[in-house]
Amino acid sequence: MAGETVITVVGNLVDDPELRFTPSGAPVARFRIASTPRSYDKQAQQWVDGEALFLSCSVWRQMAEHVAESLQRGTRVVVQGRLGQRSYEDREGVRRTVFELEVDEVGPSLRYATAVVTKAVSSGAGRGAVEAARREQGAVSALDPWVSSTPGGSAGGGWGGGGEPPF
Amino acid sequence: MAGETVITVVGNLVDDPELRFTPSGAPVARFRIASTPRSYDKQAQQWVDGEALFLSCSVWRQMAEHVAESLQRGTRVVVQGRLGQRSYEDREGVRRTVFELEVDEVGPSLRYATAVVTKAVSSGAGRGAVEAARREQGAVSALDPWVSSTPGGSAGGGWGGGGEPPF
Amino acid sequence: MAGETVITVVGNLVDDPELRFTPSGAPVARFRIASTPRSYDKQAQQWVDGEALFLSCSVWRQMAEHVAESLQRGTRVVVQGRLGQRSYEDREGVRRTVFELEVDEVGPSLRYATAVVTKAVSSGAGRGAVEAARREQGAVSALDPWVSSTPGGSAGGGWGGGGEPPF
Amino acid sequence: MAGETVITVVGNLVDDPELRFTPSGAPVARFRIASTPRSYDKQAQQWVDGEALFLSCSVWRQMAEHVAESLQRGTRVVVQGRLGQRSYEDREGVRRTVFELEVDEVGPSLRYATAVVTKAVSSGAGRGAVEAARREQGAVSALDPWVSSTPGGSAGGGWGGGGEPPF
Repeated sequence: MAGETVITVVGNLVDDPELRFTPSGAPVARFRIASTPRSYDKQAQQWVDGEALFLSCSVWRQMAEHVAESLQRGTRVVVQGRLGQRSYEDREGVRRTVFELEVDEVGPSLRYATAVVTKAVSSGAGRGAVEAARREQGAVSALDPWVSSTPGGSAGGGWGGGGEPPF
Repeated sequence: MAGETVITVVGNLVDDPELRFTPSGAPVARFRIASTPRSYDKQAQQWVDGEALFLSCSVWRQMAEHVAESLQRGTRVVVQGRLGQRSYEDREGVRRTVFELEVDEVGPSLRYATAVVTKAVSSGAGRGAVEAARREQGAVSALDPWVSSTPGGSAGGGWGGGGEPPF
Repeated sequence: MAGETVITVVGNLVDDPELRFTPSGAPVARFRIASTPRSYDKQAQQWVDGEALFLSCSVWRQMAEHVAESLQRGTRVVVQGRLGQRSYEDREGVRRTVFELEVDEVGPSLRYATAVVTKAVSSGAGRGAVEAARREQGAVSALDPWVSSTPGGSAGGGWGGGGEPPF
Repeated sequence: MAGETVITVVGNLVDDPELRFTPSGAPVARFRIASTPRSYDKQAQQWVDGEALFLSCSVWRQMAEHVAESLQRGTRVVVQGRLGQRSYEDREGVRRTVFELEVDEVGPSLRYATAVVTKAVSSGAGRGAVEAARREQGAVSALDPWVSSTPGGSAGGGWGGGGEPPF
């Protein structure tokens, strides 16, 4: 895919990331971030928050599992991804358009935090907890009507690949 | 304003830019761009368009006039600005959120076009056509109910400054 | 090419762009821009320039011709491209590293200027002045030792394609 | 500072970050990253590395300490900062120019790793190891001729503030 709008956003997770699996077992995580600019009010002599920018983010495959394991509500993150747009009808039949970020890279910001970083084992062999959780959730997903409504999701990988996050 | 989400988008104007003036006479132009990614379909052996990203852009002051003079429907542009979000209720009372770009810099792309560039005269004196158009539109604007409903817009200059484009 | 560092720079051309052709006739233009940040000096109550960032930019094919036709020394531009690095030995045998921008998109900024934009004719047929200039320069280039020292340049198109600008 | 060139780079640390302190005790960390693009070689049917981009990064204050604690040689990071340029004469008297990134935000990438994130205690009280290391290094720094040659560095905070990293 060429000509995509690649952006970087710094913000805080509004909720814990939600990890799901497509019917074929591909992990997808979704999370929302709030990015709040600040300006300095000279009269009040203090920084005041501007209006926050909220963005939904989707992340696929191994990185999705890492996100689910490592980030939580409130974590400040640096996210790079491709900005996209999706239209749908809500329950009242109102046409709505949402902006979403297809994540290429994400990490916890070290501005106000430290991190103990552990390189993932590439082979599936020793992934332990992640794999177990995955199998478990995969099993649950198999019973989940939501999952079965995402036939094409397994190919995964974003706007261009036709991969729609199963949320 | 610190901590804003600065992005660059390449796309084509969906319509001609619309130039307006706040009651105090500050020019504001608004235009929408469509940014369309492409991917190569190996089987069909051709490029196919992905889903377009549509973004509303606001540009203030002298640059607004330059945009109105220089760009038109279809022009491919490079735009850099701050991504923001605005919520409002539509006529049916449905709460909606739109993403908008507060433009810091914009120019016609030279990928498929050439441009004859003319530096603007800084002094208001000789701006000729621009000034005339401005006065004319200003005169019209003074009669426009839309203008009088934008009391605070004159300060202009973006999300943080409370400047709401008069559209 | 994946994983490239895509950046956007706003700056002014330090010199007129220089247009050349590879032996196979592929146009390449090169230009340098200076991007100067400013900070507000509260005591002096004025903006003061920070240290400028200088970047060499390469642009290929049709866009190269458009750049050569449209931009000149002093023009303020918005440039998006991929940041790369090249090492070489200068005449004194000192190893040097330069940063360069492989341009994907460039346009004259409308902040302080207006532009009359003309869409290029896709077919080579009517390109007139450009084509003439190209043939002329091509003829000159054929005699230029500099050109013959760039055997691989014809493939063109940047860091990844092995295309080295013939400068 | 306005008009700076803000970029985001994804790469791996070439060495462990180096933490130092200005005479007034302001922490500064410096690290180098290598960002390596890849392209797919259809004939060999595998990804091949392109030429790496190397960038020196400076990070100040509390974030500098977090970087020194959290990152090490090889860690893949997402870095956002302002691209700047610095000229100097090397030992042989050769004039050289280096590009540097003044870091605004940095975090370990979760693409191939997980992270246990710990929010820093804002108050200096319980920072334990960091504080101890800081005091120790501060003591050493006081004896370091290198430090005393950086009189203005304490104000810290980047290209514009005149803060030159004490490296």
